[in-house]
Order: sequence, then C-alpha cells, then structure tokens
Amino acid sequence: MKLALLGLGKMGIEVGGQLLRAGNALTVYNRTAARAQPLVDQGARLASTPAQAAADCEIALTAVLDDAALRSITEGPEGILAGLPKQAIHAGLSTISVTLARELANAHAARGQHYVSIPMLGRPDAARQRRLVMIAGGEAATLERLQPVLETIGRTTVVAGREPWHANLFKLCSNFMISGVLEAFGEAQAVVRKASLDPATFVDLVSEFFGSPIYRNYGNIMVEKRFSPPGGTLALGLKDNGLLLDAARELQTPMPLASLVRDQMLAAMAAGFADVDWTSLGTSAQRNAGLS
Amino acid sequence: MKLALLGLGKMGIEVGGQLLRAGNALTVYNRTAARAQPLVDQGARLASTPAQAAADCEIALTAVLDDAALRSITEGPEGILAGLPKQAIHAGLSTISVTLARELANAHAARGQHYVSIPMLGRPDAARQRRLVMIAGGEAATLERLQPVLETIGRTTVVAGREPWHANLFKLCSNFMISGVLEAFGEAQAVVRKASLDPATFVDLVSEFFGSPIYRNYGNIMVEKRFSPPGGTLALGLKDNGLLLDAARELQTPMPLASLVRDQMLAAMAAGFADVDWTSLGTSAQRNAGLS
Amino acid sequence: MKLALLGLGKMGIEVGGQLLRAGNALTVYNRTAARAQPLVDQGARLASTPAQAAADCEIALTAVLDDAALRSITEGPEGILAGLPKQAIHAGLSTISVTLARELANAHAARGQHYVSIPMLGRPDAARQRRLVMIAGGEAATLERLQPVLETIGRTTVVAGREPWHANLFKLCSNFMISGVLEAFGEAQAVVRKASLDPATFVDLVSEFFGSPIYRNYGNIMVEKRFSPPGGTLALGLKDNGLLLDAARELQTPMPLASLVRDQMLAAMAAGFADVDWTSLGTSAQRNAGLS
Amino acid sequence: MKLALLGLGKMGIEVGGQLLRAGNALTVYNRTAARAQPLVDQGARLASTPAQAAADCEIALTAVLDDAALRSITEGPEGILAGLPKQAIHAGLSTISVTLARELANAHAARGQHYVSIPMLGRPDAARQRRLVMIAGGEAATLERLQPVLETIGRTTVVAGREPWHANLFKLCSNFMISGVLEAFGEAQAVVRKASLDPATFVDLVSEFFGSPIYRNYGNIMVEKRFSPPGGTLALGLKDNGLLLDAARELQTPMPLASLVRDQMLAAMAAGFADVDWTSLGTSAQRNAGLS
Repeated sequence: MKLALLGLGKMGIEVGGQLLRAGNALTVYNRTAARAQPLVDQGARLASTPAQAAADCEIALTAVLDDAALRSITEGPEGILAGLPKQAIHAGLSTISVTLARELANAHAARGQHYVSIPMLGRPDAARQRRLVMIAGGEAATLERLQPVLETIGRTTVVAGREPWHANLFKLCSNFMISGVLEAFGEAQAVVRKASLDPATFVDLVSEFFGSPIYRNYGNIMVEKRFSPPGGTLALGLKDNGLLLDAARELQTPMPLASLVRDQMLAAMAAGFADVDWTSLGTSAQRNAGLS
Repeated sequence: MKLALLGLGKMGIEVGGQLLRAGNALTVYNRTAARAQPLVDQGARLASTPAQAAADCEIALTAVLDDAALRSITEGPEGILAGLPKQAIHAGLSTISVTLARELANAHAARGQHYVSIPMLGRPDAARQRRLVMIAGGEAATLERLQPVLETIGRTTVVAGREPWHANLFKLCSNFMISGVLEAFGEAQAVVRKASLDPATFVDLVSEFFGSPIYRNYGNIMVEKRFSPPGGTLALGLKDNGLLLDAARELQTPMPLASLVRDQMLAAMAAGFADVDWTSLGTSAQRNAGLS
Repeated sequence: MKLALLGLGKMGIEVGGQLLRAGNALTVYNRTAARAQPLVDQGARLASTPAQAAADCEIALTAVLDDAALRSITEGPEGILAGLPKQAIHAGLSTISVTLARELANAHAARGQHYVSIPMLGRPDAARQRRLVMIAGGEAATLERLQPVLETIGRTTVVAGREPWHANLFKLCSNFMISGVLEAFGEAQAVVRKASLDPATFVDLVSEFFGSPIYRNYGNIMVEKRFSPPGGTLALGLKDNGLLLDAARELQTPMPLASLVRDQMLAAMAAGFADVDWTSLGTSAQRNAGLS
Repeated sequence: MKLALLGLGKMGIEVGGQLLRAGNALTVYNRTAARAQPLVDQGARLASTPAQAAADCEIALTAVLDDAALRSITEGPEGILAGLPKQAIHAGLSTISVTLARELANAHAARGQHYVSIPMLGRPDAARQRRLVMIAGGEAATLERLQPVLETIGRTTVVAGREPWHANLFKLCSNFMISGVLEAFGEAQAVVRKASLDPATFVDLVSEFFGSPIYRNYGNIMVEKRFSPPGGTLALGLKDNGLLLDAARELQTPMPLASLVRDQMLAAMAAGFADVDWTSLGTSAQRNAGLS
C-alpha cells in the first residue's frame, strides 16, 4: 500500500519500521528532517512538506506529540488537508483532544477525505515488538480499509465507536487507568517504606496477583527510580490528564481520581520531575510521607 | 499433619476442603457449628470450643471476618491461646489490623507458641482452584514449618517480612491497590457512559492492555452490576480501608487515594450498597455524573 | 469625570447607578441595548458600539461575564481598543483569566492606552450598598487616576500588585476561598442532618464564631435552599474555578481543595443545578450522604 | 456556687480564673498538681483526687485534652463518677468523641448524676477575654442550672441539642470548618507566592471581605509562620479530625474535605510540624508547590 507517515518521534520511528518491513511504500515527513534518516535508509521516501507527504497516498498516518503539533501539520497551504487526495484516509495515531478529533473529522469530510483516530496503547518497546493495542474510532468502512495497516502495527485493535473522537476518549481514559495505578503504587510504596519493608517485594506481590506485566514494569521503574530516559514525560502525562479533565467537564462528569493525579503530577513537576518519566508522579505520595 | 481450622466462612470452607483433600488430619471449629457439616462429611473432626480445636494440633489456622471475631476465638479460657500446645503455630489467614497482629505475636510468644500472619489474596473461587496468592509474615523457621500447608492452599507465597504484621500491612495495601482499580473503573465508566459509548468495550480494552484477568473480572462485574451475591461486601471493604488508614496514620503517611476510596465507599453505603459486593464502590462516580 | 461603562448585567447596572449618583458623565453600552434603559433614565448616554462608548472618555469600565464577552467588546474595528483615546484607561471589573489580563495590558500599551484590572468582591446587593471590596492591579499612577471612581463604587480597595493580572489572580483566589467555605458547609450540614440535628443552628454557631455576615448569608441560603434567583450561577462558578486551576497549573501549584470544589460543582451540575446559585455546590456532599 | 474544675491546661487555667473572679467557690484538680498554683493563689482549693474534687460540688467542669484523659479522671474508684453527689452535674468542656459523650451520659444517669457537654470555640486568649463561644448539649433543665457558669466563661452559648453528644458533634464540625479555612489559605498562599505576590496582602483582602477577625488572625499566623508556641498542636488537630471522620463513618457521610485536611495534616506531621500550631497544616500545600 502507498502510505505516508508524519511525525517521527519515539513511537513514529517504530511504527515506520514496521510499515516498511511489511512491504509498504512509505513517504515520511518530520519537522526535523534528520530524524527520518533511519527510515530513509530502510527505503522510505522523504517529503519536504506535510502536503507533499500526503499527496498520492492512500493512507496518511500522523504520530505527533500534541494538538498543536497535529494542527501545524494538518492545516494551512502546506498541510495534510491541502495535499491528501479525495477518498484517502488521515489516520491520527496521536493522543489528542476530543475537540480536535471532532474538528478534523469535519475538516476532512468537507474535502471528501476521511479521518479516523487510531491512538495506541503501549510504550516504544511495545511498538518495536508489535505488542501495541490499537484503539479505533471512525466509520466501519474506513476502518476496514485500514485493517492491514493496523495488523502491521499492533497486536490487536479495539473499536471504540463510529466517531473518531470515541477512540480519543478511550485512549485518554486508558492513560487515566494507568495513572491511577501509578498513584496507588506511589502511596502503597510510601507506607511500605515508612514501615521499613521492601517495596520491590510489594511490587512482586501485586504483579503476581494481577497477573500483569504492566504492573511489574511500572512498579519496578518506580522502586528503582529509573525515570531517565523517559518513556513518556510527566509534562506529557499532565497534558493528557488535562485533555481528559476537559472532556469530562464538557460531559459534566466529576473524576476525583483524575483530579488527584493532576495534583500529584503538579507537585512532582514543582519538585523538578517535569522532563523525566511520568511514573515519577508516584514520588509525590512519598515526599508527602517525609521520604526523599 | 495434624491441623486445626477455625472460622468456616466462604474462604474457610474452601481452605478446609483443600487441606482435607491433601490428606491432613483436620479439626474444625465455627461459632455456628452447622456450617462445618460439609467438612465433617469429608472427614474433619468438629470441636466445640476454639481451645479444644487447637489442642493437640501442630498448626491452627484461623479464617475469620475481622479483629473482633479473631479476638473472640483467641482470647479467654476457651480460646486458642489457652488450648494450643507449646511450639505449635497459630497461622492467621484473616485480614486484620496491624495492631492485633502485633498483639497476637506477643501473646503467643509469651506462652511458648508461635504466631504468623498468612493473609490471602483472591476471592472464594480462586481458593477453590488453588490460585490464591499467600502473603507470609513471621520468623523464617516458623514459615518453613508451614510450607506444606501454604503449598496446599495457594499458588504461590510472598514473604513480606519477619514480623507477622508485615504480612497484614502488605495485605491491606494489596486490597488498596484493587480498590484503586475499582475507583478508576468507576470514573472511566462514568465518562464513557456519559459519552454514550459502551463500557464493556472499554473494559475489554483495558483488560487486554494490562493483560490481567483480574481487571476483566472486576470490570465486567461493574458493567453488569452483578453485585449479589457478594464476593466481599462493601462494609467489609470499608473495614479493610479503615485498617489501612489507621496504619498509615500511625506511620505518618498521607494516602489521598485511600481517602478518596473511603469517601466513595461511604457514598455507596449511603446509597444502599453496604451489603452487596464491594465493586459497587464504583457506582459513586457514576451517581455523581448523574447516572443511575 | 467622563466615564464609559460597558456591560450592564446585575453588577454593571449597580455600578452604573453609583457612578451617575456621584455626578459623573456616563456613556453606556450593552449588547442588548434595552437593558440600558434604567441608566438612560438616570441621565446616561447610550452608545451603539463599544468603540463609540469608549471614544472621548477618560476611563472606560467593563463589567461582563467572561473572557469571550470581554474579547468581543474590546477587539475588532468597533471595539474599545479602536475607540479609546490615548492616555485613557480601560478598567476591567470582570472576573477574567490571568492570560487575558496580560494580553489586554499589552494591547492597550501598544496603543498608548492604559489597562488596569479592578475585579470586585461582593454580590449585587453589596454593590447597591457600596460595600464591594475592590481589588486593584496596575501601575500606581494609573490606579491613582482611578481612585475617585473606586471610592464611588466600593467600600475599600486592596492593591494586589503592579500588573493587572495580579488583581485577577487575587480575585480568583478570593472566589476560591468562598468556594471552600461552601464545600465545608455542605459537608458539615450533611453530617449534622444525618445526626437529625438542625443545620440552621449550626450556621448560627459558625457565623457567630467567625463573626462573619458572609458566613451567615451563604450558610442560610444553603440551609433554606434559596438557589433561585442566583446571585451568581454554578456554571459561572465553575468557569472561575477553571480559570484558577489553569493559572495554578501554569504556576506548577497543586490545589487539591480547588480540585475537590471542581468535582463537587460538576456533580451538582449533573444533578441539575447548573443555572441556579453557586451555593448549590454544597448539595453534592449531601447527596453523597444519601440526603435529598 | 460550689464548683469543681478538673484539668488545668491552657484553657482550664483561663476558665478557672474567670470562675474565681466571678466569686465562685472552686475546687481544682490536675494530674500535675503544680499547675494549680496560680488558681490556688487566687483562692481555689486543691483536691488530691478527681473524686475528692467532685465531692460536695454542684457542678464539676472538666477541661482535658482527649478521650483517654477524660476517662482517666472520670472512671475508677477515685474518679468523678465515684465522687460526684447525686443530682450534681458533670459539664465536659473538652473536645471528645461522640462515643465517649454517649457513654458518659449513660454512666452518670445510672448514678443519678447529670452529664452535659459544653465544648468551647476559641483559643486561650479568647478565653481570657471572655470571648469564647460555648456549645451546649444536654437536657434543658440541666443546661438551665448551668447558665450562670456559661455566662461567666463565654460570650454566648449555642444549644446544639438535647443529647450531650450533639454538642460534641457541633464542636468537631466547627473545628472542621476552621481546618477548611486553613487548607484554603494554604493553597491560596501557595499560588500567590508562586506568582511572586504578597500573601499578607491577600490575607488582608480576604479578611476584609469576610469581615472576620478569625480569618485575619489565622491568616497572619500562617504568613508569618508563627507556629510556636502553639495555640493547639497539629497532633491535637489530627485527633479532632479523626473523631469527626469516625462520627461521619458511623453516620455514613463522606466528608472529602475532612479527608483532604487529614492528609495535609499527616504530610505536615511527616515534615516535622506535629508539635507546633495546627495552622501549620497549611504548609503542606506550599511544600507541594515546591516552596520551602
């Protein structure tokens, strides 16, 4: 298939590698072009503008950091909207706001193009091992066309609903579920450490009980304070949390745990953890217990 | 081995069945003697007092509901302390306070007996399938003697520390980790439902991502509101939460998520859910979003 | 003095009355012109655009509902920025975001005009009785020129700082202090009512202790559920709360009580209280206690 | 009147001074007898046991620190219950649990004695100036007999209800209202300080708006960090908070602000503020904002 991929951060690079290995014709774009080199070496073509990347492809995938970055490559005379052929698909892999997903759906439809949201669950190493869980939002027929690409990238796809923003809401809620685990681990490790017991043993216990490698992974990062290099930064985590709180406000839904996570994230940022791994949100509970 | 088992609630009955099937000589005691019948039918001997049950056994296991119940069968002229032979072991499987665990350790030591705490993680059906995770607290030599029994009951044992109360603190923290998942699910399902999306699909997604059957089990109970019959009641869940908050206060450790869970539990109780499954704590987030 | 007043809601009407009674020449503007009639009857001149109102005045006061409304009368070819003479002052009385206050300071300065923020504390009846507390943010020399107007409107002025946004932050924090009292009253009244005691007596006690008529006023509104007509709506209260949380995020400051108030406000909105008095946020604590 | 006063802490000493100046015959008791000297110098008689102090008086007032202290002087062969004449009144001024108030009511009634709860609102300097607000719980006829004493001690009395514990619940809720103000001030001062503005000016503003000397007093203590010597310690504040949370649990009432205050108190204790003034609970919000 003729594909485009825009945004070559940690996740984008891995996704691009999978697409190339599966035999697709891939055009890539990144604001800092140098980051494209590994993919170009594997056969990708480098475009100089988003519009150029999107032209002549069936599906343009975007994997950028936030709403602002996605707007910047989608809108304007050199944006995806301007370049994408009619009937082609813009598949947004980024974690963006419900609001922007709605806007993009309308903007693409107005030009006879299709927009779907396909946010992904998993960290870069999961992407490399094709273990990502894909969340899909959009019309059934469009998702159907996307199916081979989804199978190339992830281990399974869950369809959230018929509107693209449905997938974005599911993604924000999934990140929230993880953040709740991080806060719970932070508090439990605080009380365990205050009792002079071993937090690593506690992580073992809980991971065994839940039967979840995710628990073991996050729990151990927290115990060992392996916050650098970050899988995803705390600042980014706060951004996602804010997108969920905004969506929840619009839906008149109080989310007290999401509020608590927000406050613990801000406390961790004020303590200097903004640019390291977001699991550092668990340090707030420990500082508040007088632990360093 | 010659064993005693005191307390034949949902968990006790399952534990007793495992012990008998493994070929142990088992004496049982329960305040309401009629509940012992299934075990007697399988070969257990019925004692008429806790002291009588404990006499002449190597290990007396207790599986009761709370501190008060454990005190009532341990203390006094007809209690375990009075009946247990020197060098024998009292292994407490119940979820009790850190304070009581400390008291029991001292009381048994003063009589030349041993006390260890072995609280268990898992619901009654996990007990039946020998999938319980056992948490052990106590002296290494005593735990060693207990090993065959632990292997009979559960799938694995995690040693929390050398004092019995270490295991009780780990158990309370484990229940807290679960309660955090329930609250997170409650809030996520609230916002998902307000967006007219399917909460069961969200449970699928999150369970798939975490790779955890526990998530799937709890999540589906919540979506389907299968709160009766209860695995463990909300009132019991609030009791455990209170024991953790008490321990955390003593250790000068704030636990804001545990506080939030407490408040959501109380709200669910005030709404009439006290005697049904504790997963009903997740209804509070949904009521606060205006959902029934 | 030659003054303009734009925005004739509940507060604006009262402010306009005071300015006219003090002998000022007043030009007024309101999107819905009919609301200006009472002031026109007292001698005010009615302008047909914001620019027209601002032209030829020394001080233009604005008293509108939110950021969007203030932007709409300030920007554009018919806005205040376009009409206000050089050296004249735009005094913003509205509760707006810290961000907009900064933007307005820059925009007016770029045109040789002055901007100051003068948000007010008090409800419409306090405005009528000249008991408002004025919060001032801006350059000392500009505030000096404004002094006669401030004395006409309120009972006292507190200078928050030299930048206009300083006053807006103080105002948002003041509203937050009130919201904290409402939440505390909501919870206390819940437990008092569950104990079958009289919440009105409790309000008496607390008001007497604090020596505060504000406590008595808010407390009694809550006990008697006099939520209509609203002094300020819950939706507006949530807007202000959101502006504070935004400012606090920018300043990396967790505000857990502000987060709690947000969640209780959302719960009250979901229960149908969006358009009534914001003291109704106290109903959430009572609903969660099972009280109607 | 013939009175006894047991418990001569900061509040007791002031209360005793007022009673003597009003011409009452006063017998005093304190565990550490030396603390009684100032009152003995003013004419009080010193008793060597609680029973002896209570014998031959019409009203025995108790002003001790907590449940345990009140039990220790009330129960046993040398306690108030043993010494107090029939028909005489035990008036408990201390901040105690709802549960203990109920027990004392029953215990005194069983001996033909009367028990009423009269907890007081105000700090020691308010006691000295007779500005305390008294909260009364008990039978009308008994409170009537107590009236002259109440007028001697405080500036006004609010009757909470006909059971002694009603007054204790009102007292715990009043302390909670104050704790909410401390937390709100803590958070507001945090954001104000992060914005490089003056927290003392903010205290001025809010105190002026609420018209409350209590706000000014507490707000300034917090800004100036005058935490020693304590009016009431943080450890004592946490004790009172715990008594309210216990009562609220029994009444199935979630109190999320009380939970938040608890957590901020624990964080302040973990940071070393246990034995200084309880206004130091406001330091938690500031530490979490990265302020020292």
